[in-house]
Amino acid sequence: MSPSPPSAARTPPARRPHAADPFASRRRVFEQYLERALARRESTPGKLGEAIRYAAMSPGKRLRPLLTLASCEALGGGWRNALPAAAAIECVHAFSLVHDDLPAMDDDDLRRGLPTTHRKFDEATAILAGDALLSLAFEELTRLEQQGVPARRVVEAVRRLAAASGGEWLVGGQALDLAAEGRPVTEEQVFDIHRRKTAALFGASMALGGLVATGSTDKVNALDAAGRQLGLGFQIQDDLLDLGAAGPNLTAGPSADETKGKATYPRAVGAERSGRIAASHIDLSLCILEEYGLNTRSLERLIAATAARTR
Amino acid sequence: MSPSPPSAARTPPARRPHAADPFASRRRVFEQYLERALARRESTPGKLGEAIRYAAMSPGKRLRPLLTLASCEALGGGWRNALPAAAAIECVHAFSLVHDDLPAMDDDDLRRGLPTTHRKFDEATAILAGDALLSLAFEELTRLEQQGVPARRVVEAVRRLAAASGGEWLVGGQALDLAAEGRPVTEEQVFDIHRRKTAALFGASMALGGLVATGSTDKVNALDAAGRQLGLGFQIQDDLLDLGAAGPNLTAGPSADETKGKATYPRAVGAERSGRIAASHIDLSLCILEEYGLNTRSLERLIAATAARTR
Repeated sequence: MSPSPPSAARTPPARRPHAADPFASRRRVFEQYLERALARRESTPGKLGEAIRYAAMSPGKRLRPLLTLASCEALGGGWRNALPAAAAIECVHAFSLVHDDLPAMDDDDLRRGLPTTHRKFDEATAILAGDALLSLAFEELTRLEQQGVPARRVVEAVRRLAAASGGEWLVGGQALDLAAEGRPVTEEQVFDIHRRKTAALFGASMALGGLVATGSTDKVNALDAAGRQLGLGFQIQDDLLDLGAAGPNLTAGPSADETKGKATYPRAVGAERSGRIAASHIDLSLCILEEYGLNTRSLERLIAATAARTR
Repeated sequence: MSPSPPSAARTPPARRPHAADPFASRRRVFEQYLERALARRESTPGKLGEAIRYAAMSPGKRLRPLLTLASCEALGGGWRNALPAAAAIECVHAFSLVHDDLPAMDDDDLRRGLPTTHRKFDEATAILAGDALLSLAFEELTRLEQQGVPARRVVEAVRRLAAASGGEWLVGGQALDLAAEGRPVTEEQVFDIHRRKTAALFGASMALGGLVATGSTDKVNALDAAGRQLGLGFQIQDDLLDLGAAGPNLTAGPSADETKGKATYPRAVGAERSGRIAASHIDLSLCILEEYGLNTRSLERLIAATAARTR
C-alpha cells in the first residue's frame, strides 16, 4: 500500500460514533433493561404486547430516564440501581404519549415520523397499551425492593410517581391542554398546563433517582424542584422548536400545534420572550442543583444537552 | 287505638331497612372514605374531577372493596384499616369500566341505567378519568403505610395490584375479549378471558385485605386463590344474568353481549352447563377459605350474597 499522501490531512477525521453523545452507552443499557422488563411479561396477549413494545421502544432521547439514572448517581448511588425507576418513568411517559395521540385527544397520525400507536395497531389496542404501560410502571418500581432499596423508599417512589402521573398533574395537565385548544390563553394558563403536564414528571424522574440512592428528604426534594424547572424550560423549547420545525422531511408551513391552536408560550407571549423564559427555567434548575451540591458532571451534561437541543 | 285484628298476622312485617343487606353500613363507610379520597385531590381540573367522581361514585354493590375489608378481618385485622386498599381496588374497577365502555371498545351508552362516562362528559375526558383513577389506586395504596402497615406489605400490595390490573391480567383480558367478539369461542378461551379480566382483580381484592392484616404469605395466597375462584363464578353469573335480563326498565330481546357476539360461557357451553360451572367455582372459593380456616361470617355472607344475586 502506498503511504498516505499529504492531502489526506485535509480529509475530515473518521467520525467517532456518538462522539457528541456521552450518554449513548448508558442509553443502550437502559433500553436493554426496558426491553427485558417488557419481555418478562410474557403472557401479555400478542397484539397488545406488540403495541406496548412499539410504544415504549420507539426511538427517543430517553431524557427522563437518563435524568433518573444521573440523579441516583448525584446522591452517591450507582446509576444501574435506578434502572427499574428509570423504566417506570419511561413507561409513564410512553403511556402519556400513546393516549395524547388518540383521535379523541390530539388525533395525531405520526410521532417522530412513525405512525402513532393507534394508527399502527388500532384505537382499542392503543388505549389498552397505554393502560398496561401505566400499571407496568408501578409494577416495575416494586422491583427496586428486590434489589435492596428499603421498602419505605419504594413506597415513597410509588407515591411520587402516582401523584405526578395522576389527575392533579400529568393527566390533569392534558385535560387543561385540551380545554385550552383554540382559545386565547394567558401566560399563566400555559404555565399551569406545563407545570402539570411536563414539569411534574421531570420532577419525579429526578426525585426517584434520589430515592433509590436513599438520599435525604431535602436532597430528594431539591432534585424534584430542579427537575420541575428543567421540565418547564424543556416544554417551552419544544414549542419553539415546533414553530421552527424545518427538518429535511418537513415542508414549511404552520406546525401541528399552531394548526390546532394549542396553548403554547410562543402563542401567549411571543417567541422571543418564550426563549428567555425557557433559558431562565433551565438556569434555575442548575442553580438549585448547585445550591445542594448536586451539580454533578452527568446532570450538568444532560441539562446542557437539553438547553442546546435543536430537536 | 284498637288492638291489632287477628288478620294482621298475615300482613308482612314492616320492612326493616337493609334487613337483607348486612353490609349496608360498611358499604356506607367505604363510600364516604372513597368520596373523601377523591375530594382530597382538590387541584384536579374541574371537569376531569367531576368525571372521576362520576365514574367512581356511581351506584354499585361495591363487592370487590367489601371483599378487601372482609379479608382483612378474616386474618385478624380491623376492617377499617383496609379502607385505602379497598378504595384502590374500586378505583381500578372503575377505571376498567370507563375504558371498556369507550366507543373504541364496547361502545356502551348506558351502565346500570346511567349514561356511561364518555356519554355524560366526552370521550377525551373519559379516557383521562380512567387514567387518573388507575394512578389514584396506587397513590391510595401508599396511604396504608401512613396508617401503620409495614412498608414491605405496602410494596407487596402495589406489586399485586399492578400485576392484576396490567397487560397480563385485567387489561390483557379486555384485549382478548375484544379480539374474540363475533367469533366462535371455546370454553377454554372464555375461561382465559375471565381469569384475566375478572378473576385476577377479585384475587387481588382479597389478597390486599390479607396484606393489610399482615397475614402469612400462605394465607394471603389462599385469599388470592379464593378470590379468583369467586371472580370466575361471578363472571359466569353475570353472563347468565345478562341473558335473562328482564328488569322493569328492560324490554325483552337479545342482551347487549349477545348482540355483540361477546365471548361468554352461555355461548360456549350453553346456559345449563354454565350455571353448574359458576356454582362449582363459588363452591371452590368456600373450600379454599375453609381449608385455611378463613371462612369467617363476613366472607361467607359476601360469597353467599354473590351466589344468590339476581342482578
